[in-house]
Formats: sequence, structure tokens, C-alpha cells
Amino acid sequence: MYRPEIKVLDCTVRDGGLMNNHHFEDDFVRAVYRACVEAGVDYMEIGYKCSPSIMSPDEYGTWKFCSDEDVRRIVGDNDTPLKLSAMADIGRVEYDDIPPKSESVLDMIRVACYIHQVDKAIALAEHCLDKGYEVTINLMAVSTVMERDLDEGLDDIAKSRVPVLYIVDSFGAMYCEQVEALAKKYMAALPEKTIGFHGHNNQQLGFANTIEAIIHDCNMLDGSLLGIGRGAGNCPLELLMAFLKNPKFDLRPIINVIQTHLIPMQQHISWGYHIPYMITGSMNEHPRSAMAWMDSDRRQDITAFYDTIYTPEVLD
Amino acid sequence: MYRPEIKVLDCTVRDGGLMNNHHFEDDFVRAVYRACVEAGVDYMEIGYKCSPSIMSPDEYGTWKFCSDEDVRRIVGDNDTPLKLSAMADIGRVEYDDIPPKSESVLDMIRVACYIHQVDKAIALAEHCLDKGYEVTINLMAVSTVMERDLDEGLDDIAKSRVPVLYIVDSFGAMYCEQVEALAKKYMAALPEKTIGFHGHNNQQLGFANTIEAIIHDCNMLDGSLLGIGRGAGNCPLELLMAFLKNPKFDLRPIINVIQTHLIPMQQHISWGYHIPYMITGSMNEHPRSAMAWMDSDRRQDITAFYDTIYTPEVLD
Repeated sequence: MYRPEIKVLDCTVRDGGLMNNHHFEDDFVRAVYRACVEAGVDYMEIGYKCSPSIMSPDEYGTWKFCSDEDVRRIVGDNDTPLKLSAMADIGRVEYDDIPPKSESVLDMIRVACYIHQVDKAIALAEHCLDKGYEVTINLMAVSTVMERDLDEGLDDIAKSRVPVLYIVDSFGAMYCEQVEALAKKYMAALPEKTIGFHGHNNQQLGFANTIEAIIHDCNMLDGSLLGIGRGAGNCPLELLMAFLKNPKFDLRPIINVIQTHLIPMQQHISWGYHIPYMITGSMNEHPRSAMAWMDSDRRQDITAFYDTIYTPEVLD
Repeated sequence: MYRPEIKVLDCTVRDGGLMNNHHFEDDFVRAVYRACVEAGVDYMEIGYKCSPSIMSPDEYGTWKFCSDEDVRRIVGDNDTPLKLSAMADIGRVEYDDIPPKSESVLDMIRVACYIHQVDKAIALAEHCLDKGYEVTINLMAVSTVMERDLDEGLDDIAKSRVPVLYIVDSFGAMYCEQVEALAKKYMAALPEKTIGFHGHNNQQLGFANTIEAIIHDCNMLDGSLLGIGRGAGNCPLELLMAFLKNPKFDLRPIINVIQTHLIPMQQHISWGYHIPYMITGSMNEHPRSAMAWMDSDRRQDITAFYDTIYTPEVLD
């Protein structure tokens, strides 16, 4: 499957950072960076842009903030074809936290928002565009957005200068039919723009849904090494790259960094398929209850967790 | 997704047995049986029918042979709606090893064969039909079968009395497009018969490919608890049952037996997604080299394994 327009983004450090409050060591981030460069990956997302005045650096590590100084410590001037990205959450970053592109080694800012924040996201993304960055909007948790609200949000984005919109399966709840339907809807609403896909793996569908997105002409695709990411994790980058036959890709550096850095990381961070994540995914719910369960001393009692989600209290 | 024609088969003990030479304790097999009964699963495959004269009982456990005595020790007379199945491999079973249905608690024999064994498989399956069993043919490794050979095999099966043929992704190599193409081909060749799907999870596509098979009208679907099975394992039954909305299904006993028996089993048997399995899957190769690597002292060196598969010796 080779389509030259397809761009692959590695979100190992950014999405994986949600599992350790962004406290990756430089050695890890550098190894991921070098593997991405050698493998011919198009973009690497190295963390978040976030205001230290909003989220405390006492609690969150380097890659929650991605100061240019910290990023340059890893990548120098990044004199490679790999582009660097950071994610900005609405409400967690001030415009002044983002330097002009001329002063930054970052190439792209991806603005993550919920449906009620679309207009704020457009404003921030256009601000970043004006500062010289590539931008995307990543509309999260779309599996729970009402059709009418989504149509309105897409209409606003269509009128904006933002060139890329992501379908984001935040809850790992989508089946291929939903991916197809959303891809067609986004394409129809935004015929001039690029559509991306970012999937979570709660139901072991992260990779499959990414293939479905490719089939329906999505051209920006996220993956992470060994699928590391929040909770059940993401589409594994190694699977995505083995599927895509872009001649510029080399899978070997990806396999190698998985060996040297990701498999050892599994000793410290427990991401991947676990029944509590599968349960919230299958019920189209935020995984926060599953993550809390996995961190609790009731972790083993998955039947009790099932009961809380599948047979909740009657609300009527 | 509720289609009353769909039947679900649990292959936990049969396919999982490939990871421990079929040495499951009675307690485990009984727990799986009870969970399947309570959950409303249609079929449970409890092991193989195999000749003790061909495969030694010194090496292989109880569930390689499935004597009626052993099966009845678990299920009694199986006075439940759950049907019991055993698999028979061509070349590993004599006709005389299979008692008449009137003397057996088994309901179905699934005959597994490679493409060159199709005629033998038809003969054995029809023999089992004549003895009173339900039967299927599971044509393995179809991802490597040449189109012309497959057409001929399908033609033979079309003329037979065998009512069910499975698409089997033995190598975990198929993407959804292949599942769609094969389902359409099988349907066209066998319009009167039922088509089944059995997927492996080398590329984390076991569940996704099963959904694809459902979309294209396959009505017999295999899954296993927590995906236990050879190498990377199978489509996880819990995901399949959460997806299907058959009112007779109850997911809770499935989650509970995963908690009480499958998660503990992970201490002894290492199945699931690992890079060597992903590599053979992505190259459409038998996983035996990956399984040998996983059992060797080079297990950690996945980059070296990658080199053996992706850059093999030049043969010209």
C-alpha cells in the first residue's frame, strides 16, 4: 500500500507520556528520535506545549512543556527530513508560550480539542499558522459527539485556514464502520483539507481502524512504538509501517529501538490490552475509570469493574 | 450487530493447547466449559481427535485425543445448549478413532487441512457426517494458496456434502481486503454452504478481520478467551461477544473466567502480540520460526530475527 501523500506521525513520546506524566529520560527520547529519522518517519511528536503557570513542572516532566532548549538538547537543529510536532490542549497553553517558528525547532503544532472547544481550537491553530507553523486540529472523543454538533464544528473548520483535521478515537470505541462513516463525513465537509486518523487500541482495533482510514483516503496517520500510549495505547507504528510500502521507509530501526528501549520500558509502564480498557472501549466511555481501576488494589477484580460499567445504577 | 444465524465457537482449549501440548488441567477445562455454557456460546472446541498410535500420549496431553471418557469427566452428558467440537488434522487420525455420534458426547468434528489435502478432508468429513456428527472443513494457511489451486479446492468442496467451510488465517497475515475478497470468493463458490472465519492475531487484526468476515456474511466465528492460542493467539472471544449483540449472550461469565483462569495462565504460557510473530505475519510466513525464536536464548534479539526474515539469503 504505497500512496505518496500519506504521512506517518510517531506519537510515542507524546501519547506515551500520558502514562508517566511526561517524565521520559533524554536517552529514551533521543533513541526514539534517531529511530524515526533512520526509518523515514515523517513527523515525530515530542510532547506537549503547555503553560508552566497552568500545569506545574513539579508534577509534570520535560515533555509536557517542550521548551525549545529541552527539544534542542535531543535534536540539535534537527537537520533531518523528520519534522517535529508538539500537541497543545485548549485551556492548557497561552499564546505567548508558543514562540515564533523562526525561533523554534518545532515544525508543527497539533491543537487538541473537544467539540465545544472547536472555535477556540481554530483561533489557536490560526495563531500558530500566523507564527509560521504547520497546524492540525485533533477533535477528540468524536465517538460521543452528537451528529448535529459535529456538523456545526465541521462547518466552522471548513471556513477556517486550518489545513488538517484528525479523526480521533479517544476511547478506542470505534469499529471500522464508524471510521468509514466519519472519514466520508469529514471528506465531504472539508474537501480541500487533509484528514488524519489517531486511534486507540482498547478493542485491539487501533491498527485495523487506521487501515480503514487509509482505505477512505485519510493521509495523516498516527502510530507509536509497540503501541505505547494512554491506557490500551495506540496503533503500533511497526504494524503501520510494515503495511505501508513507502519505499523511503525502513522498518529495521523501528524494530531495533523497540528492542533496546520499548520492551525494557514495559517493566515500568503498563500499557496495552487489558480487560478494563476493553470494557470502557466497548461501551464508548472515557478510559479514566479503567485507568483508575488498573492503578487500584482492585486491579485483579475485573468482574467487579465489568459490573460497574455494564450494569450501572438506574438513573431514571 | 445481531444476526441470529451467527454462531460463535470458543477454541480456547483447542488452539491454546498448541502452546502447552494440550496439557490443561481438568479445572481449567471445566471453568472454560462452564463459562461458555453460562455465556450462551454456541460451540466449544475442547481439543483434537488424534490417534494415540500416531501422536504419543507420553508427549501430548489429554486434549490432543479427547477420548469420550475424558470429555465426559468435564461435561457429563453435556445437558446444555452448548455444542462440543473437536478438531481432526488430516494424517493424524484414523477413521476408527472416531466413534459413532450415538456413543459420543461430541457434536461436531472440524477437519483441518492444507490445500493439497482437500480431497482427504472431504472424505474424512463425510465419514464423520455419516457417523452422525456436524462437520466443517477448516482450510488452513489460505493466505499462501495460489488462486488456481484454491478455485479447484473450492470446486471439490462445492460438490461435497460438507456444509461449512472456514476461511483460516493461519499466519495472521491477512488484512481486511483479503478477508473481504476470500469471503466473496467462498460465497460465490459455495452459495448453499455456511462460511466461517478463524483468525490469528500476529498483526493485531484477529478481531478486526472477524468483523470484516461478519460484514461479508460469514456466520461461524472462532474466538478464544483473552485470545489464547498458538503464538500471537486468536481473536479474543470477549471482544467478539461485546461486538455481537445477540440477546442470548452474557459477557459476564467470560470476563469472570478470564479473571480466574486466563490471567493466571499468562504466568505459564506466553501467547499474544510479540514482534517475531508480527514479523512472520507481515511477511505471510508460518510462525514456526518466530515460535522457535521466542523459545530460544536469542528471544530478546528481535532485530536479528527481523534480519533473518526481511533480508533472507539470496536464492537466485
